[in-house]
Amino acid sequence: MRTVEFKPTRDQYTWTFGGAPPVMEVAPGTALRLWTEDAFAGRVTSSADKPSQVLNTKELNPQTGPFHVTGAEPGDTLALHFVSIEPARDWAASTTIPLFGALTGTDRTATLQPALPELAWIYRVDRDRGMATFAAHESDFSLDIPLAPMLGTVGVAPALREVRTTLVPDYFGGNMDTPELRAGTTVYLGVNVEGALFSVGDGHYRQGEGETCGTALEGAMNVILIVDLIKGGAPAWPRFEHDDALLTVGSARPLEDAWRCSQVEMVRWLGELYDLTTMDAYQLCSQLCRSPLANVVDVNYSAVTKIDKHLLPPAVAYGGMHRRLAALGGTLE
Amino acid sequence: MRTVEFKPTRDQYTWTFGGAPPVMEVAPGTALRLWTEDAFAGRVTSSADKPSQVLNTKELNPQTGPFHVTGAEPGDTLALHFVSIEPARDWAASTTIPLFGALTGTDRTATLQPALPELAWIYRVDRDRGMATFAAHESDFSLDIPLAPMLGTVGVAPALREVRTTLVPDYFGGNMDTPELRAGTTVYLGVNVEGALFSVGDGHYRQGEGETCGTALEGAMNVILIVDLIKGGAPAWPRFEHDDALLTVGSARPLEDAWRCSQVEMVRWLGELYDLTTMDAYQLCSQLCRSPLANVVDVNYSAVTKIDKHLLPPAVAYGGMHRRLAALGGTLE
Amino acid sequence: MRTVEFKPTRDQYTWTFGGAPPVMEVAPGTALRLWTEDAFAGRVTSSADKPSQVLNTKELNPQTGPFHVTGAEPGDTLALHFVSIEPARDWAASTTIPLFGALTGTDRTATLQPALPELAWIYRVDRDRGMATFAAHESDFSLDIPLAPMLGTVGVAPALREVRTTLVPDYFGGNMDTPELRAGTTVYLGVNVEGALFSVGDGHYRQGEGETCGTALEGAMNVILIVDLIKGGAPAWPRFEHDDALLTVGSARPLEDAWRCSQVEMVRWLGELYDLTTMDAYQLCSQLCRSPLANVVDVNYSAVTKIDKHLLPPAVAYGGMHRRLAALGGTLE
Amino acid sequence: MRTVEFKPTRDQYTWTFGGAPPVMEVAPGTALRLWTEDAFAGRVTSSADKPSQVLNTKELNPQTGPFHVTGAEPGDTLALHFVSIEPARDWAASTTIPLFGALTGTDRTATLQPALPELAWIYRVDRDRGMATFAAHESDFSLDIPLAPMLGTVGVAPALREVRTTLVPDYFGGNMDTPELRAGTTVYLGVNVEGALFSVGDGHYRQGEGETCGTALEGAMNVILIVDLIKGGAPAWPRFEHDDALLTVGSARPLEDAWRCSQVEMVRWLGELYDLTTMDAYQLCSQLCRSPLANVVDVNYSAVTKIDKHLLPPAVAYGGMHRRLAALGGTLE
Repeated sequence: MRTVEFKPTRDQYTWTFGGAPPVMEVAPGTALRLWTEDAFAGRVTSSADKPSQVLNTKELNPQTGPFHVTGAEPGDTLALHFVSIEPARDWAASTTIPLFGALTGTDRTATLQPALPELAWIYRVDRDRGMATFAAHESDFSLDIPLAPMLGTVGVAPALREVRTTLVPDYFGGNMDTPELRAGTTVYLGVNVEGALFSVGDGHYRQGEGETCGTALEGAMNVILIVDLIKGGAPAWPRFEHDDALLTVGSARPLEDAWRCSQVEMVRWLGELYDLTTMDAYQLCSQLCRSPLANVVDVNYSAVTKIDKHLLPPAVAYGGMHRRLAALGGTLE
Repeated sequence: MRTVEFKPTRDQYTWTFGGAPPVMEVAPGTALRLWTEDAFAGRVTSSADKPSQVLNTKELNPQTGPFHVTGAEPGDTLALHFVSIEPARDWAASTTIPLFGALTGTDRTATLQPALPELAWIYRVDRDRGMATFAAHESDFSLDIPLAPMLGTVGVAPALREVRTTLVPDYFGGNMDTPELRAGTTVYLGVNVEGALFSVGDGHYRQGEGETCGTALEGAMNVILIVDLIKGGAPAWPRFEHDDALLTVGSARPLEDAWRCSQVEMVRWLGELYDLTTMDAYQLCSQLCRSPLANVVDVNYSAVTKIDKHLLPPAVAYGGMHRRLAALGGTLE
Repeated sequence: MRTVEFKPTRDQYTWTFGGAPPVMEVAPGTALRLWTEDAFAGRVTSSADKPSQVLNTKELNPQTGPFHVTGAEPGDTLALHFVSIEPARDWAASTTIPLFGALTGTDRTATLQPALPELAWIYRVDRDRGMATFAAHESDFSLDIPLAPMLGTVGVAPALREVRTTLVPDYFGGNMDTPELRAGTTVYLGVNVEGALFSVGDGHYRQGEGETCGTALEGAMNVILIVDLIKGGAPAWPRFEHDDALLTVGSARPLEDAWRCSQVEMVRWLGELYDLTTMDAYQLCSQLCRSPLANVVDVNYSAVTKIDKHLLPPAVAYGGMHRRLAALGGTLE
Repeated sequence: MRTVEFKPTRDQYTWTFGGAPPVMEVAPGTALRLWTEDAFAGRVTSSADKPSQVLNTKELNPQTGPFHVTGAEPGDTLALHFVSIEPARDWAASTTIPLFGALTGTDRTATLQPALPELAWIYRVDRDRGMATFAAHESDFSLDIPLAPMLGTVGVAPALREVRTTLVPDYFGGNMDTPELRAGTTVYLGVNVEGALFSVGDGHYRQGEGETCGTALEGAMNVILIVDLIKGGAPAWPRFEHDDALLTVGSARPLEDAWRCSQVEMVRWLGELYDLTTMDAYQLCSQLCRSPLANVVDVNYSAVTKIDKHLLPPAVAYGGMHRRLAALGGTLE
C-alpha cells in the first residue's frame, strides 16, 4: 500500500472546510501518516494561561489537510479508516473560555450574566500507562484518568460554494467532537466538490460525551488513516463503522434536531442493509439504538445514533469497505 | 425486612403524579413486591390494532401507587432501590401513534403533514432465553433481540400544588424513559409533599435510547423495590446510582436544556462528593461523563449524565445508601 | 344583563388551573366585575425589596376564580370578552428574580454562572394621564411611558386530570403574558372539564413583547368581562378576537414550537372561515400574518399569530360572538 | 452625491457572502441604483411550476453585489440607507418547496413523513394600486392584499475566512427576511473584512412575519440605497433604524436564541444611547420592546427587537447617520 507522511508546518495549517488549496493529492487506497496540532494551535501550555490572552480567535482548530482525493466527485462517498490515533505529547490542556461551553451563556444563548472564570488545566500524560492526571485548580484533589484518544474533527469541503470554519460541524462532518471517532473507525462522508478535500484535526486525549466545558484534553496527535472512495451513494449525514457498531452523526440546533438527523440517517441505513420499509426500520431503530451525545457546545451540536452489530443480522455495508480497510490497517502499524 | 405485596386492580390504576389518594402507607425500610400494567393499559394486544381506535387517551401510562412514605417531608430525599424488574408476560407491544414520536410532527412541533401510518408490532417474548422477537410488518424479516427490562416511570408528587399526568417527566421524576432505570438501580428523588407519594409503572422489556417511535417493548412487570428515606438533601433533579455508575436525569425542552439540567446536577454531586469547587467539578465532569439520551418524545425530553465509578475515587453517596439497599435486596430474591 | 361583582379575599386566591373549588357558578351571558391582585401577591412594594426575601414561591400569580360556567362541557368553547382592564393602584412593580427571565440562565437553561442582581423597580402611575414613570436604579435617568393595561393570565382547567400552576401557559391558556389580552379582546378557550373553571389574573400595566426580564409593570386590576359559551368547536389552542384582528396563541418550548402551534391554529381558522384547503390557508397565512412574541420566560414560551381583519374578506367567527359581546360590553362601562 | 447604477447580468449574480470578487468599489457617500432578481433566480413563472423541477438548488437567492466599500476595515460599521425598494415586475411568485418551510419537517427537523405538496402561487401585481392578488389553488377564493416591499437579504462578508450561502442569516446579516428592511430603513452592519463586501437581494413584494411557508411574494426589485461608513463601533448583531424605531436582529436556532441575540444587542444599544447600566437597560427594554418575528424557516431563524422612538427620550445614534442619509435620500427619488 502506498503510504504518504505529512506533518504540516505552522503556515500550512488550515482553518476552514473548503476554500483552502489542497496540500496534496492522494489516490484511493493510500495510507496517510499525519500529525495534527491541538485545537488551541499549541498556544495553551500552562495552567496560568488565560485563554482570552493567549488564544488567537482567528487561529483555532487547525486542520491537517485538505487532501484532494483522486477521482472523487460530488455524490460519491469518501471512506476514511482511522488505523491509529496516538497522543504526540506528554501533556494535554483543557480550558474554560469566556462565554463558550454548555453550562454558560454564549454568543448565541445570549445572556447578561458575567462570564465564568477562564481557567486552564494542564494534564500530565503517561503514554505508557495510558493515563492522564487531572489536578484541581483550587484544591489538592488529583485523579488519574484513562486516555481515550480521538479526533474532534474530520470533514470534507461543503456544498453550495461555502467555506466553513473548522469550529462548526454540519452535514459535511467537521467539528463533531464525538469519542466514537477513534482508532478502528471508518468514516463515510458524502463528497460535495471535486477531490472531496478532506482534512482532520482537533485531537482529544480524552473527552466526555457533550464536551461540556467546551474543550477536551486537547493535544497534538499522530494519526494513521487509509483513504478510499466509493462511487456514488453519498449519505446525507456522516456514517461511521466500527468492528462492533454502525453509527450516524447529526449536527444542528436545537439538540433534538441534531439527534433527529442521525436517527433518520440510521433508519435509512437499516432500510438499505436489510431491505426494510421506513416504518419497520423506524421500529427496529427505536428498540436497538444507543444515543450518546457528542458535543453540546459548538455552533451546531452533534448527536450520535449507534447500533451494536451483535444485535443485528450480519450485513455488509459499502461492499465490506470497513472490514477490508481494517485488515489493511493491521498491516501498517 | 417487612415486605408488602400489591397488585392494583384496574380501578386502582393511577394516572397522575399528585392528586391521587395513596394506596397504602409504607415505612422506610419496607420492600414492595409490585405488579405494573403496561403503558397502553393493556389495550394493544394484536398487530392489527390501531392505537387511535383501541387506546383511551385518558387512560395511558397507569401507575402502581402512590405510596405514602411514613415521615417523608418536603426537602427530604426518597431512595428507591429496584431489586428486580421482570417481565410478567410472554409478549410485548410497540406502536406508532399518530402525531406522537420523535420522527414526526406532533401536537407541539406542529406541522401540516399527514401523520405517519399507525402500526402495532407484537413481540413474542421468551423469558427463559431473555429474548424478544421482532417481526417486520411489511416483509418477512424477523430478529431476536435481548430483553433489557426497565421501568419508564418513577416519580413523586410535584410541588406547587400541581397534579401532573404520568406521561410527562420533570424534576419530580415521572416518565423519564431511561434504560438506566433497571434492576440494581437506586433512585434518589426530592420530596415535595408530605409522604412523598411515589408511584412506578411503564415497564419496557427493552428500549432504545431516545424511545424514537414513542413506545418501547411495552409490557406488564413484576417489580421488587426497597423504600428508604434520607432526611433533607433533596436533589434538584433525579439522581440514580448503580454498582458501577453515578447518574443524573434532566427533563425539559429543548433537549439541550434537559441535558444541561442533568449536567449541572452532576457537577453539584461531584462537588459534594469530592469537595471540589464548581469550576473543578465542571472540568472533571466534562472529561469523564457519558451522555446517553433517555426519551426525545415526551412533552419534556429526558437526558442522562453518567459517570462510571471506576473512573472516580471511592466515595460514599448518601451515607452508603445504595450499597446497603443492594445488599438487602440480595436477601429478597 | 346579569352582573356579578367579586373581589377575592387573600385566602380566596387561587394558585392553579384545575384543582381549586369554584368560587361561584356563572351562567353564560353574565358580566363579571372582578379585582385581581398582582403576580407578586402584593409583596413587592419598594425598590429596596429583594424578591428572594419578600416573595413566597408558593404564592405567585394569584388568580381570581375559578368560575364554574353553567352548562360548559368538555369540547365546548368558552368565550370571555374583556370589556375593561383598569389599573387599581397608583404604582406598579417590576423585578429581576434570581435565575428567572430571558437573558439569564434559569432552572432549566441551567448554567453555572452566578445570578444577575435582584432588583425591584417601582413605577409611579398616573391613571389620569395614562402614564407610568420609570426611574433607573443606578442613574438619575427617568422616563414617562404610556400605560397599556393587559392581563397576563386567563385559562381554564386542563384535561387529563391535571392541576397546573398559574405560572405556566399551555393549550388551556394560563400565563400567556401577551399584550394582546387587553380591553376589547374576546378569548376563545377549549373546555376540558365540566364547568370550564376559568380564572384570570396577573395584571400588567404595561409589558414589552417577550416580558424579557421576567416581570412586567405588575399591578392589581379592576376587570370587567362577559362570559359566554359556544357548544362544541373547542380550538386546540387559544384564539383571540379584537375588532381589528384575529389571533391565535401557542405555548411550548422551544420558541419555534410555540409559534408553530399558533400558526397551525391560524391555518385551521382561516380554512374554517373561508373554506380554504390547508395548502391555500398556509399560503395566505404566510403572507398576511404578524408574529408578535408574548413571553419568553415562562416554563412554556408563548407566541402569537395575528392577522388584521382589514386584510381579510369579511367573515363571522363563532356566529358573531365577538361583535355581540363587544356591543353588550358597551352598555356596561 | 455620486450615484452609480448597476443591474447584474445573469452571470454576475452572487450566491454567497464572502468569496465572490466585488462587482465594483464604492466610496462612502455614494448612492446606488440597483436591480435585484428574485430568490428563485426568476425560475418560477407559472402556477403549474413544480419547484423541485424548475429550481436549481445551487442557484437560489442571487445577490446584487458584492460592493467593496472604500476604506472599510474590520471593526468598522457599514451604514446602508434604503431610499426606495420598488417592485420591478407585474407579478410575484410564492411556492411550497418539499421539506422546506416552518410547518413541515425539514432536512434538519428531520422526520419520516412525506413532504407537503409542492405548489406555486402566482400573484398579479398592480403597482399603481399597490396591490397583489392571491388566487387559491383549489377553490375560487381570491383576495387583493397590499404590497409592502422589502428585501429579504442584506449582508457583508463574514469573519473567520468563511464563505456563506446567501440562504442563511447570521451575525453578518444575510437572509434575515424581516419586513422591517423596507424603504426608509438604515442598516448598521459590523465590517469583518476589508471593503465590507456587502450585497443585497431577495425582494419580497410582501411577507408575513415568520415567512411561514418558506417563501414570500418573491419578485425582482429596483432598489436605491446610500452607502456610508462609521469608523469603529461594529455592533455584534445587525442594527436597523427607521424614522420611528430602533431595531436589532438576531439569527440563530432555536428561535429563543435568535431573539435573545436581538435583545442583548438592544440592551447594549439602550445602554450606549442613554448611559444606562445593564440592569436598568434590561428593565427598560423589557417594558418597551416589540418582538416581531422575521423568519422561522432558514437554517438560522431571525427575530427582531424593536422600540418605537416616540417612547424614548431623543437620542442620536451613530452621530445622526440615519437622519442625514434619509435627508440625502429625499433628494434622490
